[in-house]
Amino acid sequence: MILRGIAQVVFQPNPWVGLVFLAALFAGGWQFGVFGLLGAVTATLTAYLLGAARSERVVPGLEGFSGTLIGVGLVLYLDTRWMTALLVIFGAVVGSVLTSALDVLLKPYRLSGLTAPFCVVTTVVVVGGTAFGRVWAEHAGTAPPSTAAPGLGMSWTHLWQGTFNGIGQIFLQNQWYAGLIFLAGLVLAGWRVGLVALASSVVGLLTGWLLGAQAADLGAGLYGYNSVLTGVALFGTFVVATPASAVYALTGAVTAAGFTAGIGELFAVVGGHTLTWPFVLVTWTFLAAVPMFSRIART
Amino acid sequence: MILRGIAQVVFQPNPWVGLVFLAALFAGGWQFGVFGLLGAVTATLTAYLLGAARSERVVPGLEGFSGTLIGVGLVLYLDTRWMTALLVIFGAVVGSVLTSALDVLLKPYRLSGLTAPFCVVTTVVVVGGTAFGRVWAEHAGTAPPSTAAPGLGMSWTHLWQGTFNGIGQIFLQNQWYAGLIFLAGLVLAGWRVGLVALASSVVGLLTGWLLGAQAADLGAGLYGYNSVLTGVALFGTFVVATPASAVYALTGAVTAAGFTAGIGELFAVVGGHTLTWPFVLVTWTFLAAVPMFSRIART
Amino acid sequence: MILRGIAQVVFQPNPWVGLVFLAALFAGGWQFGVFGLLGAVTATLTAYLLGAARSERVVPGLEGFSGTLIGVGLVLYLDTRWMTALLVIFGAVVGSVLTSALDVLLKPYRLSGLTAPFCVVTTVVVVGGTAFGRVWAEHAGTAPPSTAAPGLGMSWTHLWQGTFNGIGQIFLQNQWYAGLIFLAGLVLAGWRVGLVALASSVVGLLTGWLLGAQAADLGAGLYGYNSVLTGVALFGTFVVATPASAVYALTGAVTAAGFTAGIGELFAVVGGHTLTWPFVLVTWTFLAAVPMFSRIART
Repeated sequence: MILRGIAQVVFQPNPWVGLVFLAALFAGGWQFGVFGLLGAVTATLTAYLLGAARSERVVPGLEGFSGTLIGVGLVLYLDTRWMTALLVIFGAVVGSVLTSALDVLLKPYRLSGLTAPFCVVTTVVVVGGTAFGRVWAEHAGTAPPSTAAPGLGMSWTHLWQGTFNGIGQIFLQNQWYAGLIFLAGLVLAGWRVGLVALASSVVGLLTGWLLGAQAADLGAGLYGYNSVLTGVALFGTFVVATPASAVYALTGAVTAAGFTAGIGELFAVVGGHTLTWPFVLVTWTFLAAVPMFSRIART
Repeated sequence: MILRGIAQVVFQPNPWVGLVFLAALFAGGWQFGVFGLLGAVTATLTAYLLGAARSERVVPGLEGFSGTLIGVGLVLYLDTRWMTALLVIFGAVVGSVLTSALDVLLKPYRLSGLTAPFCVVTTVVVVGGTAFGRVWAEHAGTAPPSTAAPGLGMSWTHLWQGTFNGIGQIFLQNQWYAGLIFLAGLVLAGWRVGLVALASSVVGLLTGWLLGAQAADLGAGLYGYNSVLTGVALFGTFVVATPASAVYALTGAVTAAGFTAGIGELFAVVGGHTLTWPFVLVTWTFLAAVPMFSRIART
Repeated sequence: MILRGIAQVVFQPNPWVGLVFLAALFAGGWQFGVFGLLGAVTATLTAYLLGAARSERVVPGLEGFSGTLIGVGLVLYLDTRWMTALLVIFGAVVGSVLTSALDVLLKPYRLSGLTAPFCVVTTVVVVGGTAFGRVWAEHAGTAPPSTAAPGLGMSWTHLWQGTFNGIGQIFLQNQWYAGLIFLAGLVLAGWRVGLVALASSVVGLLTGWLLGAQAADLGAGLYGYNSVLTGVALFGTFVVATPASAVYALTGAVTAAGFTAGIGELFAVVGGHTLTWPFVLVTWTFLAAVPMFSRIART
């Protein structure tokens, strides 16, 4: 159940895929593996104790993936400390309630909450954390690689590392080998999923490059991960894979990459982070619109 | 009807409770009593004139409570002036329309608008007010006690005053004796309501203390009032009171207190205030999630 | 279909009205006409290719109006460049998907998306655009006439130009003669529509003046256009025209004008613009509330 919860971050109900993802998290840093597990266990346990539907929700891991990301995200932005562990546990509990709330609210439209609970909980903690003397470490908030080396000139290294990092950043990892292990996990889930993820990562990177994003950000995969999630969600996962839906998913992946900067600028004002907000908002929009279009069909 | 409207701020349809609350408002300052009444009367009258359901909405005071808070909030942030009175009247009219709109939008999920109309109207007026030469007084916006005396060391005075202020801040009052009168009103409504409110205020204060909030803010009750409203809403009012729902309400109260800082930081950028946004957002989330959990039941 | 799409910005399914509006756009500047057309054609074509309902949506122009505004808005804020044309095309495609998504989400409440897709796409592009080296021109963002000449003293010129500009600003135009041509188009659509638009523009302007807005902003029509759209929407278009609904629409028009400053202050922080957000949010609220009020009826 826990490993399925980790795999469900990319919509896969396969425990072996979750195991590979967990290995990739440990490859990125022991703290990401430990805190990710802590979040996944807490969220799943909360759903179980509150009496969520066992066979439909808890067993397939649908109650664990936001908790996983909350654990990884909070340890990245708040550092490895006991207070962070406490916040991950409480955040995963609230994330679990939020997951259920979104499922109820979105059910009439056949949408799910995606990673929105992770985005909400992490944004609230990171934005509000600066006000609390015992939450904010002095050297926290330095995590994401940003415009340290300004310039639009993209090198070959930026391109290939950015492509792998675009997959690794789904779990907030920016080591290309971690991204490679995540990709291996996706290929294990199915050749098509791996291929769509790889192509979407390149699409996101090229969108950022075309618009004139900083090369360092492209190399860190910051324009790729929302495109990967959107591409996989809109092609084969929630939408039937056809030539028309390939164009639809491509449009979604490009939109998610372009949206990244808008969300980033918005949250930068209050010290928040982009997270997977672009994926969530773009995918909700593109899925909600499907019933109006005779050429596109939901799975 | 008007007194019931004031009592409904804390979900009580009892006119005597409303009378005690009104006395507490006058104890906090004559202008809070007068402008609160102005808002309550305007909102109730608007709903009546537009033809809202009389026995279900107008008579139980459900159309008056946001107006009360709009009156109290605007006079606090904009000062006692004729323009403020005009804005309270117009704000209460719009708040009444917003109350009905939220009721329609949230009905499929069995949620109500809570104090969201107050939050929306007050936020819009306070944020936008700075752009208008005749709205913003020179010495306005100095109202809420903030980090004047920085430091995390909580004294005994902070603790007991903060507990009462945590109840008074529901109506934006920060005199401990006003909070005490509000508590008396809640006890009049029922022993359990008073006890839940008192316990929730302590829970909110301790949450803030644990996370490292400023002692002056704790003493002013700024971490208590959203917890009080959330605790009362989730234990006995909208959710059946059971041991399981006590833990659920406790989680909600802690979340609302922690959320306070996030909302505060967010609105500080544009000159807005926290108001009861944390209560509204947390309670909506926790109530919406109930149908997914077999251990928790709506009333 | 394309001309109807332009006319639908003000809810008119009449191609001749669209032709007059297009002439007004060209009167404001050739680039507004060309980019507006580009957006309208792209959005309508996208909806057609995705298989949107032909007779209900595509033919009456309901798929074109957000695209028109996206074209006009992006060329205003990003300048006349090839990259802007590319962004208009892609923005209109995404705007078309967003239009369908909102229609699905709002259908249970009998609401439509109004100009929200235009607001969302333009806000995202303008806010995020600053992060992209190839999107943001050096001299961009200087477009809207703002507090260049501070002062609350409104002259006769401010009054009459502001009244016409309040209509022209619906299409982001601030030349009074462009506003006059738009008004002519509305009169062509029907005497009552023209009269309601003119009256609403005056109402918005006077609301801003009463609250103490800058006279230069009043003269530029910045307090009028949201009132015009709200007034026309709430009186005769979506709500049956009665004496009661006239007061309701008047309240809405005043609210939209007052709301303008709040939205403006909020977006100014991140470099966004007010656009027609006040109209969208106020009209959604006032339309959603109608079922609760026995005195007001939907068409």
